[in-house]
Amino acid sequence: MGIVIAFDGSGEKPKASLDNLVKLTAADMALVNEFILEKAQSHVELIPELAGHLINSGGKRIRPMLTVAAARMCGYGGLHHLKLAMSVEFMHTATLLHDDVVDESDMRRGKEAARVIWGNQASVLVGDYLLGQAFKMMVETGSLECLRILSDAACTIAEGEVLQLSVSQDTSTTEDAYLKVVGAKTAALFQAAARVGGVIAARPRKEQEALDSYGRNLGIAFQLVDDALDYSGKQAELGKSVGDDFRERKITLPVVLSYRRGEAKERAFWQRVMEKGDQADDDLIYATKLMERHGALNDTIERARHYGSIAVDALAIFPDSEWKAALTEAVAFCISRAY
Amino acid sequence: MGIVIAFDGSGEKPKASLDNLVKLTAADMALVNEFILEKAQSHVELIPELAGHLINSGGKRIRPMLTVAAARMCGYGGLHHLKLAMSVEFMHTATLLHDDVVDESDMRRGKEAARVIWGNQASVLVGDYLLGQAFKMMVETGSLECLRILSDAACTIAEGEVLQLSVSQDTSTTEDAYLKVVGAKTAALFQAAARVGGVIAARPRKEQEALDSYGRNLGIAFQLVDDALDYSGKQAELGKSVGDDFRERKITLPVVLSYRRGEAKERAFWQRVMEKGDQADDDLIYATKLMERHGALNDTIERARHYGSIAVDALAIFPDSEWKAALTEAVAFCISRAY
Repeated sequence: MGIVIAFDGSGEKPKASLDNLVKLTAADMALVNEFILEKAQSHVELIPELAGHLINSGGKRIRPMLTVAAARMCGYGGLHHLKLAMSVEFMHTATLLHDDVVDESDMRRGKEAARVIWGNQASVLVGDYLLGQAFKMMVETGSLECLRILSDAACTIAEGEVLQLSVSQDTSTTEDAYLKVVGAKTAALFQAAARVGGVIAARPRKEQEALDSYGRNLGIAFQLVDDALDYSGKQAELGKSVGDDFRERKITLPVVLSYRRGEAKERAFWQRVMEKGDQADDDLIYATKLMERHGALNDTIERARHYGSIAVDALAIFPDSEWKAALTEAVAFCISRAY
Repeated sequence: MGIVIAFDGSGEKPKASLDNLVKLTAADMALVNEFILEKAQSHVELIPELAGHLINSGGKRIRPMLTVAAARMCGYGGLHHLKLAMSVEFMHTATLLHDDVVDESDMRRGKEAARVIWGNQASVLVGDYLLGQAFKMMVETGSLECLRILSDAACTIAEGEVLQLSVSQDTSTTEDAYLKVVGAKTAALFQAAARVGGVIAARPRKEQEALDSYGRNLGIAFQLVDDALDYSGKQAELGKSVGDDFRERKITLPVVLSYRRGEAKERAFWQRVMEKGDQADDDLIYATKLMERHGALNDTIERARHYGSIAVDALAIFPDSEWKAALTEAVAFCISRAY
């Protein structure tokens, strides 16, 4: 099931790979991972048990890698970027724990969600604990500016999630309204993660803003590709389930585009399955057919490529370096996941 | 239903009233309240709607009052204590929102719980938003030490709540284990609330520690009195429901004492109603009878009085002032709620 999206980009792009970013950040990320395991400890046994389930579930840790790479690209030679990277990952982990409760999800990264094993109660509270630990780590860096950026992001993320609750299941959501949700719930943390790397390196404001723009646009591209993958055959090839967003009746860009471009009969279909939640066995197949007919997945990827380009251009003011190259390749990687 | 606890204290105590604390902090608290309403705003409508429901539900705001009073007693003349007070109240509100989801409570402060009206999802996320706003406000004070204290408290509170999950429904919980829960889930915020008042006033460490001890012990006393009230006729007089903890099978000190002091038959009763959750109509009446037989409520109040005394003595190093008197009276007030 799902559409295989045709590759239609030019051949002149940078290497689409995370390899160099992973390689360059490896030593730092090993320390970040040690920190993460250490700070997920508690004398209350349930906390490391539950937190460890998610922490060891094989996420790519792309957000903390951004912090590390941004700091290093800016020539930072200290250790505080490791604490910031850990804070960013804990903020992300806390969000995932709370999201699973909010979405009533049963699976996360191919494993049973923590809330299924330990219950909603523990997931909410351990999320709160990790958020508290994230702030404790930020305080240890002594950087009020990083604290300001990351606490702003925490508010924006929660705001974005609430906004998603309000717009969810509304097929008439505009692309702009949807991008507001994405900007808040996903891009805000990418943005903050990249920016604090520049802040801790005490770089001038224009460089901080460049990192901010890079992170924000990469985050949007990342989410849009995720949205497309959820309806794509590529997702199935990766062994992940297809159609989760469909079943959870999440309005994402492929749905927004298909609804807007569809005839009355098609709009009625989207209203039935997404707003009323009345879904039959073949509806997901029909939904992907409609997306194919209207080029909704290809255009979602096109939009992602648009934001990806902005991210790459944002980095232009930095002198060339292996770090800059690796961060640029990460954008191409993020888009290439769709193919 | 419930026991009327006999008054058995001496007559030489300070006035048992919050009146002076409320009067002295009135001007500051009016500003704190304005802040609270302003910072609960968001362009996402659901946020002020849901937050406002709880914020306007008539809580006494005792925690932020502690921050304000501690700062003023220490001679602080700035405005940052207002931001800290607001942060403390938002941390508390976020905890209440998450607690209601965790406990599956239907009522909060005599009104329908937010989660009943807006759902668990929104309650979790708006709690996260308020926590983010709390940290943003702390950052605005520029005090890393206050940030450290309050982020520590955030972790400890979450840890305490998780610990309560693990010990809940275990009738063999010791008094020590229970006090660990109380120290974390309730006292940690009182403690931090009082301490940051001294920190923002840049007082020496011994005064900060005195405020810390005052807040911590007041918090423990406050929670123990709450625990006793839940089984007390006084609670019914106040128009609040009796036996919520019993129905939610929360092991509190009155249960711990009754279980330990009871015969085999009584222990079997506690195991049936608290561990198995097999509760019949008359069980609450029988539970309060057992508490009466073993002096469990009176002794819970006695324990509260013990911690209250420590709180009062902790303040002794401060020169006499109307602030000190008001904070001392607040301890007596907290105990007197039981009568």
